[in-house]
Amino acid sequence: MASVQDIGLSAAINLMSAFAFLFAFAMLRLQPVNDRVYFPKWYLKGIRGSPTRSRGIMNRFVNLDWTTYVKFLNWMPAALKMPEPELIEHAGLDSAVYIRIYLLGLKMFVPITLLAFGVLVPVNWTGETLENIDDLTFSNVDKLSISNVPPGSPRFWAHITMTYVFTFWTCYTLYMEYKAVANMRLRHLAAESRRPDQLTVLVRNVPPDPDESVNEHVEHFFCVNHPDHYLCHQIVYNANDLAKIVAQRKAMQNWLTYYENKYERKPTNRPTTKTGYGGFWGTTVDAIDFYTSKMEILAEQEAAEREKIMNDPKAIMPAAFVSFKSRWGTAVCAQTQQCHNPTIWLTEWAPEPRDVFWDNLAIPYVELSIRRLLTTTALFFLIFCFMIPIAFVQSLANLEGIQKVLPFLKPVIEMKTVKSVIQGFLPGIALKIFLIILPTILMTMSQIEGYTSLSYLDRRSAEKYFWFIIVNVFLGSIITGTAFQQLKSFLEQPPTEIPKTVGVSIPMKATFFITYIMVDGWAGIAAEILRVVPLVIFHLKNTFLVKTEQDRQQAMDPGHLDFATSEPRIQFYFLLGLVYAAVAPILLPFIIVFFAFSYVVFRHQVINVYNQKYESGARYWPDVHRRLIICLIISQLLMMGLLSTKKFAKVTALLLPQPILTFWFNRYCAGRFESAFSKFPLQVR
Amino acid sequence: MASVQDIGLSAAINLMSAFAFLFAFAMLRLQPVNDRVYFPKWYLKGIRGSPTRSRGIMNRFVNLDWTTYVKFLNWMPAALKMPEPELIEHAGLDSAVYIRIYLLGLKMFVPITLLAFGVLVPVNWTGETLENIDDLTFSNVDKLSISNVPPGSPRFWAHITMTYVFTFWTCYTLYMEYKAVANMRLRHLAAESRRPDQLTVLVRNVPPDPDESVNEHVEHFFCVNHPDHYLCHQIVYNANDLAKIVAQRKAMQNWLTYYENKYERKPTNRPTTKTGYGGFWGTTVDAIDFYTSKMEILAEQEAAEREKIMNDPKAIMPAAFVSFKSRWGTAVCAQTQQCHNPTIWLTEWAPEPRDVFWDNLAIPYVELSIRRLLTTTALFFLIFCFMIPIAFVQSLANLEGIQKVLPFLKPVIEMKTVKSVIQGFLPGIALKIFLIILPTILMTMSQIEGYTSLSYLDRRSAEKYFWFIIVNVFLGSIITGTAFQQLKSFLEQPPTEIPKTVGVSIPMKATFFITYIMVDGWAGIAAEILRVVPLVIFHLKNTFLVKTEQDRQQAMDPGHLDFATSEPRIQFYFLLGLVYAAVAPILLPFIIVFFAFSYVVFRHQVINVYNQKYESGARYWPDVHRRLIICLIISQLLMMGLLSTKKFAKVTALLLPQPILTFWFNRYCAGRFESAFSKFPLQVR
Repeated sequence: MASVQDIGLSAAINLMSAFAFLFAFAMLRLQPVNDRVYFPKWYLKGIRGSPTRSRGIMNRFVNLDWTTYVKFLNWMPAALKMPEPELIEHAGLDSAVYIRIYLLGLKMFVPITLLAFGVLVPVNWTGETLENIDDLTFSNVDKLSISNVPPGSPRFWAHITMTYVFTFWTCYTLYMEYKAVANMRLRHLAAESRRPDQLTVLVRNVPPDPDESVNEHVEHFFCVNHPDHYLCHQIVYNANDLAKIVAQRKAMQNWLTYYENKYERKPTNRPTTKTGYGGFWGTTVDAIDFYTSKMEILAEQEAAEREKIMNDPKAIMPAAFVSFKSRWGTAVCAQTQQCHNPTIWLTEWAPEPRDVFWDNLAIPYVELSIRRLLTTTALFFLIFCFMIPIAFVQSLANLEGIQKVLPFLKPVIEMKTVKSVIQGFLPGIALKIFLIILPTILMTMSQIEGYTSLSYLDRRSAEKYFWFIIVNVFLGSIITGTAFQQLKSFLEQPPTEIPKTVGVSIPMKATFFITYIMVDGWAGIAAEILRVVPLVIFHLKNTFLVKTEQDRQQAMDPGHLDFATSEPRIQFYFLLGLVYAAVAPILLPFIIVFFAFSYVVFRHQVINVYNQKYESGARYWPDVHRRLIICLIISQLLMMGLLSTKKFAKVTALLLPQPILTFWFNRYCAGRFESAFSKFPLQVR
Repeated sequence: MASVQDIGLSAAINLMSAFAFLFAFAMLRLQPVNDRVYFPKWYLKGIRGSPTRSRGIMNRFVNLDWTTYVKFLNWMPAALKMPEPELIEHAGLDSAVYIRIYLLGLKMFVPITLLAFGVLVPVNWTGETLENIDDLTFSNVDKLSISNVPPGSPRFWAHITMTYVFTFWTCYTLYMEYKAVANMRLRHLAAESRRPDQLTVLVRNVPPDPDESVNEHVEHFFCVNHPDHYLCHQIVYNANDLAKIVAQRKAMQNWLTYYENKYERKPTNRPTTKTGYGGFWGTTVDAIDFYTSKMEILAEQEAAEREKIMNDPKAIMPAAFVSFKSRWGTAVCAQTQQCHNPTIWLTEWAPEPRDVFWDNLAIPYVELSIRRLLTTTALFFLIFCFMIPIAFVQSLANLEGIQKVLPFLKPVIEMKTVKSVIQGFLPGIALKIFLIILPTILMTMSQIEGYTSLSYLDRRSAEKYFWFIIVNVFLGSIITGTAFQQLKSFLEQPPTEIPKTVGVSIPMKATFFITYIMVDGWAGIAAEILRVVPLVIFHLKNTFLVKTEQDRQQAMDPGHLDFATSEPRIQFYFLLGLVYAAVAPILLPFIIVFFAFSYVVFRHQVINVYNQKYESGARYWPDVHRRLIICLIISQLLMMGLLSTKKFAKVTALLLPQPILTFWFNRYCAGRFESAFSKFPLQVR
């Protein structure tokens, strides 16, 4: 077990490395050549122009003004300065509310930390249990935790009281935050200028009709059932071929622009190209003429394909976007059942145009139902059995296996350094690769489940990832062994034993999780702001591929807040904070540093870098809230388990109201606020 | 363990007693004097008149036509003859669909019984395990059950296959029934003539407004938000005092009619009465004059009270019934959220006027939320700890306790017969009394939860009673010990052990449950048709209290189908059938007899006796369906537990898809049909 000094040293090293990242970032961001990597949002907004033209040749690439280097941390106040309404205007409500999650972490844990250090740390410190045990090596860190309180001691009353205080405070901040976010969302919806998607309903599962086309059928249905409000509709076509032609034409247009620019700069000789693939072989022709003629051919193809799709009944999907004359009519149609068979004519608020996930618009109800059953089963196995295929791959990737399949590699493998590298890294790499592609797997599963908008897909993937983290990272770190072994032992244990088994191990793992927070949390955030991968890719692209201004625009990869993976990770820190608040308060300052640092970094990123793919109006908040409640209940159950092993079992029953009240609080909040995120009140038009 | 002969004898006795009941019923129902007890529905409909006037004095009371006695069972075909559409017309959809639950039992269990007797009984019978064990007393009944198959035998493949067949068949019948009932409901709603409640929405939680009265506030809100459809509204007054005056006036009117009739028959002397309570003392006055003047005073009081309520803002409740011009506008208002605060302006389809539970119309949202938390907690303790207060009462009611409190009873108590009666009956009586008042307790709990209609209250009480039966009757009979002890042992056992513990005991309890079905089921149904209590009460009232025709009308107690208590009891028989289908098929014929007998009896009762308090249009079906699914899943889990103890553990995993698929089937059905029971499609107007 690490001592306070060890942890202090580790913290110092991690802080230093985080500062090194920050310093590197501060240096790099000041170089004009990196401007598009660190401020892409302003370029996309058209506010910031390319600096490469206006300045001198040296100034174009390197910043020589030494005064800017002195104030290398001044991006932090700059990031905090923008007021929230402006931030919403600038980056959208999704991003602004996302940042509030970190702020919520601060609001929640700063008072909890003060209380825990004021009350629990003295109580634990003077417990004097560990000093009396000679054969155990203990450290000052453990003396700060609940382990130092003797079993059966009345000191546990302090812990019980404090868990109630913590629960109450957590619920209070959650309630205030839910209320604030709900109001922000309603203001946001009401203040927006009339956008088409606010007056549009997505209709799916239009039943086939023998006498009418989908187009006529939709029109007749809505003319009859919403006569006063129906405006028009747009049916959905399967236009994959058309999309290919359009993409081709765009590429040709880019080449044409490139050669036209070239010709403009040097009007003496017309540029030439070759007719083969990529312009590398074939007969040499005049480039501008060649691409102009190609463009014409593609334009004709496009028109023909468009014509074909419009007249081909097979290209029509049984879905449509129906527009209404008023928000009232739209709300009515989106929120009511259309037909007495509830599996056809399904209506919902149309997602934003950017938010639509087109592939899933035409899945029949029965298929949808089966798909959800299958993915739920698959998710269960993914969470509890994911180690099995990885162990299989690892067993294949051992030395004998490789020698057998590829005997000619034998002399190389038998070299000592190569051998140790393979033995040391290969098994780890299999796991690492799996963890990297895990979000993609989860997103694919959500897509198979058949949700119709990107925002919904993100929310569902986040839910899956959250459970994966809870089972495999949290429980997996506390109880060693694979999730499958845990599942088996849990099934064979009485349900009251599970919190005990987990709860007892918690105080012992405090130092492990402190290190985890520093390495994964602090360093991860610092790496986020440095944007190493986009930086390298941008410069590579800029050097080798960029031909026109449009290419440069595309080489810039602003990225976006990836809700599906980053939100469950934040939840994990909330969970750690709540679990350890009463057990080992020493962990709390590390959590607070994480939240504070993340808040500044992500505020900066949201303002200067990220370009969101869609705007859902913070519709994900009920999910965030629910998962926070789950974390809270987990922490309460584990506390009960821990206390019941401390010869304090009778009093532990006093903790029983906590999960019940928290569950009830969740129900209450859901009833009070959730509809603001799924429904649209008739009063607001 | 009982042999087949024992069970046969017991069945014969129970059948005989049931037939005795039926014979008694057949005799009694033919007597004209009992006509109002056995055919009250026809009286209430005004189709059947009082036979006492038209016939001779003897014929008025006793039926002397011997031919009618010969065909004493002919009420059975008569009950079955009425076609379903006519039955719906005559007794309402609620009753017609309720009877279908028994029919569903037949549809489900007749093929299952045939299959079980064709396949499983031969397999079990030739298992030859019990014959080889000498020290066990076994009977032919056990030879028919799964206990006779040797552990680890491949014969269990037959049981596994059959459980799949049974599951499939059960789900199929459930699906067809859900579909049929949903269609019946939709036809019923569409076919009904326009009733006011179909165009009315109940609005609750009208927020207080400082400037406007509730009346104006409601009017303005709906004029603004539903301008094209709003017709009018009726606010709800707290008129308890008025209701008392009206009741008083009704009683006076009855006395007046009585004396007027008396005077009519004997115009020579005017009837007199006394001014004191009940006419027993006080000064003698002319009765007709006295009651006429009383009526006038009350009419004045009534008008004054009415005036007072209309003008008193405190008497106005924050709820209103809002009527719309079209079903479309009503559907829109009932099914959409009105205000961005989802806890005010709550709208729902107005219940039928008879169905409204007035007391709960004005409960604020927060209070409602707390009430539900409290009743849920109370229900949990009621189910698991109900034996504790009863044991306490029983301990008080023992001999020493009585002697201590009432020492003068000592000589009486010490008499031997009295002693044995007290010791034998008192503890049982405490339990019996509790079980009799249990439905009332559950209904009170549902009322506290704050539902606004009688039908909803019935549905919620049924849900509570169902869980009480599952835990205390089903599990309580299989595992001896109180529910609280069970709960404790379940918490201390691994979750996989629970189905094993319960599953192993199941085959041993087959004869117990067969007896239960005969005593509680068969005899209970026969007692239902005899209507002993209403019969006795009617004759008592008719002899001593009835003064006018109106009194006689009221003395008739037609009763009603008590959904809250009788539906969970049917579910219990479904559960027994499903659990024992693959374990001990011998139980199935008894279940079939129960369902067939109940079907005939309740069809007769619904046609001739019951007068429903409200008509909800079979809105309870999703609950019935869900509970049947729960029974099915319980039976599957117990089968898994049973098989895993038969040295067949590996193959038991093959049963795992059953509960998962059943759960998915439930989700599918809910998505497919449930909205037909809670929403109202816009297409149907």
